[in-house]
Amino acid sequence: MENFTEILGATRQATPLVHFITNYVTVNDCANITLAAGGSPIMADDAREAGQIAGLCSALVLNIGTLSERTVRAMLLAGQTANLLGRPVILDPVGAGASDFRNDTALRLLREVRCAVIKGNNAEISFLAGGLAAARGVDAGPENLVTEENLAESARRAQQLAALTGAVIVISGPIDIVADSREAWAVRNGHPLMARITGTGCMSAAVTGAFLGANPYAPLQACVCAMAGMGVCGELAHEKLLAVGGGNGTYRMLLLDAMSRLDEATLNARARVDGFRLSPHSSPCCNAAFFHTAALQSKN
Amino acid sequence: MENFTEILGATRQATPLVHFITNYVTVNDCANITLAAGGSPIMADDAREAGQIAGLCSALVLNIGTLSERTVRAMLLAGQTANLLGRPVILDPVGAGASDFRNDTALRLLREVRCAVIKGNNAEISFLAGGLAAARGVDAGPENLVTEENLAESARRAQQLAALTGAVIVISGPIDIVADSREAWAVRNGHPLMARITGTGCMSAAVTGAFLGANPYAPLQACVCAMAGMGVCGELAHEKLLAVGGGNGTYRMLLLDAMSRLDEATLNARARVDGFRLSPHSSPCCNAAFFHTAALQSKN
Amino acid sequence: MENFTEILGATRQATPLVHFITNYVTVNDCANITLAAGGSPIMADDAREAGQIAGLCSALVLNIGTLSERTVRAMLLAGQTANLLGRPVILDPVGAGASDFRNDTALRLLREVRCAVIKGNNAEISFLAGGLAAARGVDAGPENLVTEENLAESARRAQQLAALTGAVIVISGPIDIVADSREAWAVRNGHPLMARITGTGCMSAAVTGAFLGANPYAPLQACVCAMAGMGVCGELAHEKLLAVGGGNGTYRMLLLDAMSRLDEATLNARARVDGFRLSPHSSPCCNAAFFHTAALQSKN
Repeated sequence: MENFTEILGATRQATPLVHFITNYVTVNDCANITLAAGGSPIMADDAREAGQIAGLCSALVLNIGTLSERTVRAMLLAGQTANLLGRPVILDPVGAGASDFRNDTALRLLREVRCAVIKGNNAEISFLAGGLAAARGVDAGPENLVTEENLAESARRAQQLAALTGAVIVISGPIDIVADSREAWAVRNGHPLMARITGTGCMSAAVTGAFLGANPYAPLQACVCAMAGMGVCGELAHEKLLAVGGGNGTYRMLLLDAMSRLDEATLNARARVDGFRLSPHSSPCCNAAFFHTAALQSKN
Repeated sequence: MENFTEILGATRQATPLVHFITNYVTVNDCANITLAAGGSPIMADDAREAGQIAGLCSALVLNIGTLSERTVRAMLLAGQTANLLGRPVILDPVGAGASDFRNDTALRLLREVRCAVIKGNNAEISFLAGGLAAARGVDAGPENLVTEENLAESARRAQQLAALTGAVIVISGPIDIVADSREAWAVRNGHPLMARITGTGCMSAAVTGAFLGANPYAPLQACVCAMAGMGVCGELAHEKLLAVGGGNGTYRMLLLDAMSRLDEATLNARARVDGFRLSPHSSPCCNAAFFHTAALQSKN
Repeated sequence: MENFTEILGATRQATPLVHFITNYVTVNDCANITLAAGGSPIMADDAREAGQIAGLCSALVLNIGTLSERTVRAMLLAGQTANLLGRPVILDPVGAGASDFRNDTALRLLREVRCAVIKGNNAEISFLAGGLAAARGVDAGPENLVTEENLAESARRAQQLAALTGAVIVISGPIDIVADSREAWAVRNGHPLMARITGTGCMSAAVTGAFLGANPYAPLQACVCAMAGMGVCGELAHEKLLAVGGGNGTYRMLLLDAMSRLDEATLNARARVDGFRLSPHSSPCCNAAFFHTAALQSKN
């Protein structure tokens, strides 16, 4: 993928305002990583203002990590306002599959809000693909993590959900998949320590919101840049941790440090992004034709 | 107390899922310390999913630090589900005694949910002992902190509340008391800086949740391990702070570092845990017969 | 301004209890900076206890960063209780001007609660001045930041709002203005990195709450001390950051470190506080007569 790292500089140039309706566990991390990535965060989760705030912003991030009836109402209103105004909506269906309330909310958001990006782990995306496609015969078995072994199958699932929703699908994990209905990319950056602190998934969605807010016509590139960027920061933080010593607390701080200091040259040098294309009617495991650094057209 | 430090390794082996309904002030700290202690946190505070999420988890932590009618309803539902399924419930009655709403909620939770552990400071535990026992003539005067002087009296209060509730009672402070109706233990780890940052009490309850989720048949040992473990981490963080310099921010980070790096050998070497037994009909101050490193049987 | 730095020591002596009804984004930062500044924070945002908790506390901080109908009700009740008991109320109208819900809430709080301090950025204070004075012909154009160029004009706006409300007005920014209806002070401490992490504005209000809780008869001095104190901590954190390296995460930690270690001597040596007086009927730009280190009388 050419030039996707330019997304970072464009974001810092534009300082896009990003509206979050997100869980209260990692909300501070989301605000700080948004600032570090070049955006400006606003949190507003009540229906009395969610539409109006969404209207002020360049992107909207909906994260269902801690839900209530009140915030679901706000998500729907904010999402519909963003849709009307053509602003990208990023959905992070945290815990989809774990409770009926999360499941119903995630599926309702997908039905009533047009999402530009849906980002989840493999289990969450599998749930959504299965839930949405129940009447269409798509069978999505849950996988815990994307590995080299199930990569092509996971990418196919992402592309199926992309085709159903029109969204770019991001499956986060040791390998991240970024796909729309035509192309899929694998991002092999990151470090296992990222899973030992809370919020790295939510932060990835926040960075995606900032990048997409500043680059609304390049959703696939923005997502690849966000996942590669977070992953590279996770690696840089780990390298620094080895040098200075410490544990999870230090690592958490170093991750935010890395994002605030990340530049395009570093991202370019360290990003490990590979594209592959699946032919539409083939079996999912045998025809992932890898191609590298293909130029992508804007999808929007 | 023999072998209580094995609780730590067993937790890291099992990675127990812990459900939290907790205040939004320290919720991120609770999530991160749970991960550092070897558990996996889920926050869900709405009645629409609280029961279902509790059913997925190995332990439930209820913390009343910031309450609303909505979250109280979720606490009751989650607590009753955990009871039905035999999963341990840890209650942290933050601020009990400070407002009628907190008092009523804490006492209602005690009446309607069977708690495996109740952890509070001396004032909170005194309030609960007095509130629950109002009709039984138990008079519990509030003490601010457990000291060597009021240790035996505080332990007796803990044991009275343990007898009333069937729970293990933890009184946190410069000296921590861990007691069931038969035995009481004093934990003399920790550092005064722990009280200069927010959330160390909530984090102790979180660690207790992780330890008890992985070791449900050893509630007394799990509580002692959690309080000694947090205390040892507070000491290690202070020693590191002296070496690197800094203030409250650095200390907060180092505390999380220490928990993520704590091992059984260190905990064993540094834990300062002493047991004592109070004869049931004696005056509370004169017959605390101390005994050290007594083997405890599982209570559950 | 003489002796304003004594506010810091008096706060650490008194350990005032501060009640917060504040947004969930930066609430942990507010709690930690309050402890670092010498206060003791309590968060309680439900009408069932907000009045009672306010009654226990030395000061009340209302921050509208994330609002719901439930918390607005709690703010009104807590504010009115604090008024009845003569406890100072600090209002931080985060985002006033951005949505009708925030605007209505901010103006309603100003009408129904007597505030000792109103602290916002230039846009927020301009909105309040315009909103409150709509029927009085005061025209307050929004300015993004207080600069040397618009300093006198901004100070005049602060003084107009001070006259309308009886509150000390704080306009935060690269230059902070602290004004009552008679005098205005400019505080030129701080560092641009403070705007690159979330919560420094909220933290300033928190520190103001702690300082005013311990020094209720010196609101102007307490506000100057809080803004100069936060600014000096921002500078100290930056100097340390240059020495140790790092980015936003490290800076955030160092800011909290600095507040926990700040002493009166350092604050005295580094505070850059200048007073000026505007004659009541002159044009706003030409007669800001600066005077330095004038002794201020208590205003309350």
